[in-house]
Amino acid sequence: MRASGHDGMIFSMRRSFPSPLASAQAPVAFTLPVRIYWEDTDAGGIVFYANYLKFFERARTEWLRGLGVGQQTLHERSGGMFVVSEAALKYHRPARLDDELAVTVRLQHTGQASLLLAQEALLCGQQLCCEASIRIGWIDAARMKPARIPPDVLRLVCP
Amino acid sequence: MRASGHDGMIFSMRRSFPSPLASAQAPVAFTLPVRIYWEDTDAGGIVFYANYLKFFERARTEWLRGLGVGQQTLHERSGGMFVVSEAALKYHRPARLDDELAVTVRLQHTGQASLLLAQEALLCGQQLCCEASIRIGWIDAARMKPARIPPDVLRLVCP
Amino acid sequence: MRASGHDGMIFSMRRSFPSPLASAQAPVAFTLPVRIYWEDTDAGGIVFYANYLKFFERARTEWLRGLGVGQQTLHERSGGMFVVSEAALKYHRPARLDDELAVTVRLQHTGQASLLLAQEALLCGQQLCCEASIRIGWIDAARMKPARIPPDVLRLVCP
Amino acid sequence: MRASGHDGMIFSMRRSFPSPLASAQAPVAFTLPVRIYWEDTDAGGIVFYANYLKFFERARTEWLRGLGVGQQTLHERSGGMFVVSEAALKYHRPARLDDELAVTVRLQHTGQASLLLAQEALLCGQQLCCEASIRIGWIDAARMKPARIPPDVLRLVCP
Repeated sequence: MRASGHDGMIFSMRRSFPSPLASAQAPVAFTLPVRIYWEDTDAGGIVFYANYLKFFERARTEWLRGLGVGQQTLHERSGGMFVVSEAALKYHRPARLDDELAVTVRLQHTGQASLLLAQEALLCGQQLCCEASIRIGWIDAARMKPARIPPDVLRLVCP
Repeated sequence: MRASGHDGMIFSMRRSFPSPLASAQAPVAFTLPVRIYWEDTDAGGIVFYANYLKFFERARTEWLRGLGVGQQTLHERSGGMFVVSEAALKYHRPARLDDELAVTVRLQHTGQASLLLAQEALLCGQQLCCEASIRIGWIDAARMKPARIPPDVLRLVCP
Repeated sequence: MRASGHDGMIFSMRRSFPSPLASAQAPVAFTLPVRIYWEDTDAGGIVFYANYLKFFERARTEWLRGLGVGQQTLHERSGGMFVVSEAALKYHRPARLDDELAVTVRLQHTGQASLLLAQEALLCGQQLCCEASIRIGWIDAARMKPARIPPDVLRLVCP
Repeated sequence: MRASGHDGMIFSMRRSFPSPLASAQAPVAFTLPVRIYWEDTDAGGIVFYANYLKFFERARTEWLRGLGVGQQTLHERSGGMFVVSEAALKYHRPARLDDELAVTVRLQHTGQASLLLAQEALLCGQQLCCEASIRIGWIDAARMKPARIPPDVLRLVCP
């Protein structure tokens, strides 16, 4: 069972899944180039479906790092951190060994305790391989409980 | 950014995300025990969020194998295969090193070209760590195009 | 570059690499069955070479668990833990999707600060896919420094 | 059991393991920067020991790509490919989340059917985290049998 989307039947969550058109309305905040290596592929000759979540995580990390939000540092200073609470993925076309993907981050919605991000993995910067809607929430790491995103972090993320 | 759900704000896809109550209506077709090893964890001390997709894939594979649907065999015989086209995940509580998860498969909907599955990863068989809604579609592997699920496969999956 | 050994040229470390004959002298202390899933394979259609280290780690963990050596518990009680300090692998023949491997643990040598293990991944319980020589050392986790293995742990591992 | 080397007892393969001094004699042919993400770490807070094999593979791939040896292309043109037949790793100090490693490739020995490479993962370009000796052999992919490295590939790798 490999990752390779197609437009088959109506998916129950399709209505609310961010369409490419909708997500295009928020500007791309960050793009990370990701090269596909042997480790990323499976016996079907294409990228294993779970690995897009790795690529999306790398892009979020670099986006935050670029804003000055170092996750390790934040954790040590504030005792809090971002964690993923929800993820929705749609697979459109497969990526293969040696491909280079452009992995994007768009900030769709900013709340007091979480951010909603739209992310895409694009081949040749154009052909959509996988799109995702990812919710990251702020938690108090010691208690593993949701908490308000610190104001200085919010200001960096959403100026 | 680690996997550890919480009930923060309203997620845009929440309305259509299969609630535990809804998914409980379809009986559990298969349960796979999954032990958490070092490889599954991350520096936050918990299971890395992408790895639940590995666990869900293992459970789907064993569910199909138990029904007599060998994926490798099918591919060689029919030239077709199941691929994941959509996945939605909700993270409720973290799993940790040495935990044993019960990973379930429920058949939510059967179409001519795809199946909709509800899957859960439960701690101690009860506490929900992660739930997912996964659509797997049948494709003609040579052309990588959606196709009708062969009738004998459909009969095995949904008798 | 995929994992699939062959007996090509003389490898510089071959002289000292534990031969199947030598490692056969220590009895198999533990065997773990490991099923190969999509996540384990690569675009060459075979198990990705790094993943044997995952399988060997799973087998070591279950071997220790069977002896009553819970790693998490030990860490909390003694502040120490086993870490891998050296690993040598030889790839003999590829394993593929749906294969079931028997992954073994043999205790080759017991020292005061480390154990030397011989491990094998066998197809159908017979054909050698990958063999490894793994050294695990005991460390004081707080200082990340080598330390003596606690006597009660040594007694469990090597009665 | 996490990856974190120490200089404990004499390892049986130490005599023949390429020492930093010995490997320094072959010039560094290629260096790849590798950032450590959540996916690379484990619950011990450090890079999981198998993942260095991923980093080393990425560096070998980029080294070959830089020489004009595209693995996918070669496979299609010649029906052959490089596979790993032996690997020896020594873990010196742990790498952590957000660290950036310099991963090197040195060509130690060129044979007719295989290459012996020395690889290192260095923190801040200096502190050795993990060193490896990797043998890659050429195989006829259809028969999965060792074969002579094509002369034009050898000329590119070892001018």
